[in-house]
Amino acid sequence: MLLDQRYLPSKEEWFQCADTDDIIYALQQMVIRGAPAIGVTAAYGCVLAALQAKGGSNWEEALEKSLQDIEHARPTAANLAWAVRVMRQAWRSGSFLSAPELADFWLPKAQGLHEDDIRVNKMIGAYGRDLIASGDTVMTHCNAGALATGGYGTALGVVRSAVEQGKEVRVIASETRPFLQGARLTAYELARDNIPVRVACDNACGLLMHKGLVHKVVVGADRIAANGDTANKIGTYPLAVLARRYNIPFYVAAPFSTFDIQTSSGEDIPIEERDPGEVKYMTGQMIMPRDVEVYNYAFDVTPQELISGIITEKGVFDPGELA
Amino acid sequence: MLLDQRYLPSKEEWFQCADTDDIIYALQQMVIRGAPAIGVTAAYGCVLAALQAKGGSNWEEALEKSLQDIEHARPTAANLAWAVRVMRQAWRSGSFLSAPELADFWLPKAQGLHEDDIRVNKMIGAYGRDLIASGDTVMTHCNAGALATGGYGTALGVVRSAVEQGKEVRVIASETRPFLQGARLTAYELARDNIPVRVACDNACGLLMHKGLVHKVVVGADRIAANGDTANKIGTYPLAVLARRYNIPFYVAAPFSTFDIQTSSGEDIPIEERDPGEVKYMTGQMIMPRDVEVYNYAFDVTPQELISGIITEKGVFDPGELA
Repeated sequence: MLLDQRYLPSKEEWFQCADTDDIIYALQQMVIRGAPAIGVTAAYGCVLAALQAKGGSNWEEALEKSLQDIEHARPTAANLAWAVRVMRQAWRSGSFLSAPELADFWLPKAQGLHEDDIRVNKMIGAYGRDLIASGDTVMTHCNAGALATGGYGTALGVVRSAVEQGKEVRVIASETRPFLQGARLTAYELARDNIPVRVACDNACGLLMHKGLVHKVVVGADRIAANGDTANKIGTYPLAVLARRYNIPFYVAAPFSTFDIQTSSGEDIPIEERDPGEVKYMTGQMIMPRDVEVYNYAFDVTPQELISGIITEKGVFDPGELA
Repeated sequence: MLLDQRYLPSKEEWFQCADTDDIIYALQQMVIRGAPAIGVTAAYGCVLAALQAKGGSNWEEALEKSLQDIEHARPTAANLAWAVRVMRQAWRSGSFLSAPELADFWLPKAQGLHEDDIRVNKMIGAYGRDLIASGDTVMTHCNAGALATGGYGTALGVVRSAVEQGKEVRVIASETRPFLQGARLTAYELARDNIPVRVACDNACGLLMHKGLVHKVVVGADRIAANGDTANKIGTYPLAVLARRYNIPFYVAAPFSTFDIQTSSGEDIPIEERDPGEVKYMTGQMIMPRDVEVYNYAFDVTPQELISGIITEKGVFDPGELA
């Protein structure tokens, strides 16, 4: 059961996944999004794949095919392939007579991965809160909160942890076109937690920094290359460029599952292009001329030299230090 | 009669101004927007003010009050106060027995100001087109086109003029939240002129520049301070910062009526804050949590050191050269 993020905050609807098709639909249509949440969902997706595996004695082949379909549902978030890899390794390291037997073995694995994610988020928060001073206004982009993870959040986990410490922290959420994760999701979950939050259009962030209204920037990540270059939601990179101009510290908060040491630099990270309709329609209505084309790249890459530190469950690292 | 820009491109509706209240409403609610168009509208507004001037022998005092109301309808665009000043000077340099007599005198003045604006736009285009190479993709922000001026356009006038010269020019229009002038107006008027245009969310512009898809940036202006610092639609400044990172030339195209030599630098330009509802609602529906506040500054300031040149009706100048 996934809280359907397409309809928040106006509707709290749940989306039920009965099989891998549902999981793939949920991932691709962004019923659920956020790299760590995508990873957790994929792990549960593997369990569903095992439960429905066909092929008789060829069940392993059929299942492997399903795993690959899940793995390729979205191209950018490293945590998706990572979670499927973890599940596959667990499978390959045992021996199973049937798919249902594997499903029984896998379910606690997926649940463990889910619980781990929350635990890891809290550790990220515990390391990250030391970077936040009481009185700070933290700008964040997209949603790297409870809704983007197993719970608690990466970037918002840092904020939550600082607030739990008794620090006064305010958040500016950039609205994050076209899907409005900042305006819809970050504002929603912080308001529910009574953490002061204010929304700004993405293009206002330069002025807000210029006015001295932003003390730190903390964002999540979808994939971190070996050299520290970080792919995250489109619009992250301009914030990093602007932050550098004002010497505002710019932090990435992400679990180790986001690191992809096979990818040497950001230039090699695949950037998903999504349906133009996401840009052309708002709340079901066309907002621009019908025949005009759009760009809808879902992510951009922030080069490591613009990143002040990467906050992980093992501490805060200089980008590139982990290569 | 104003083409109502709140409803384009989905509806072509005309808004009739019968008196100064209508003019002020049209300016404040953005029935019409764009600094030069605001100036032209204000000039016609003066004529309407004279036609309706009350006060008997005190008509001059009542009229001066109306002129001030028009002048202060919006704070940032220099062309608004400039146009009222031009009309006031014409009034003060003659002598008029009655308001209707002044209205008769003013109407051709306002029409002349309107025609001048188009002529000036074409001269801006003629100077600006030399900066554009065939094959260029020009990024623009907001709408600095025919809809933002008496006709033809400043930034889009440069594009139109280059195209009329036979150059192949493509445009990327950043959508320009919250009012979507780029997606709605720039895309609409360029598509009507068969000039290739593609829309991108404001936050995608960093990636598009990084991909080498942008060769020049040309934007309009709402107010240019004596030192060349330029106020323009919110989001202009981040584009300038990003353009500099890639050594992409960044031009401002604006008539001399946009210069405000009384204002020494951008820090002194008043930045309009508009109704939060513009950010919170899209196509009539709330897109974020009801109780969360927003920032809605309508403009930002691009410092002169990020501007490659200011394209005017008198040629292309280095910013600051005109101080």
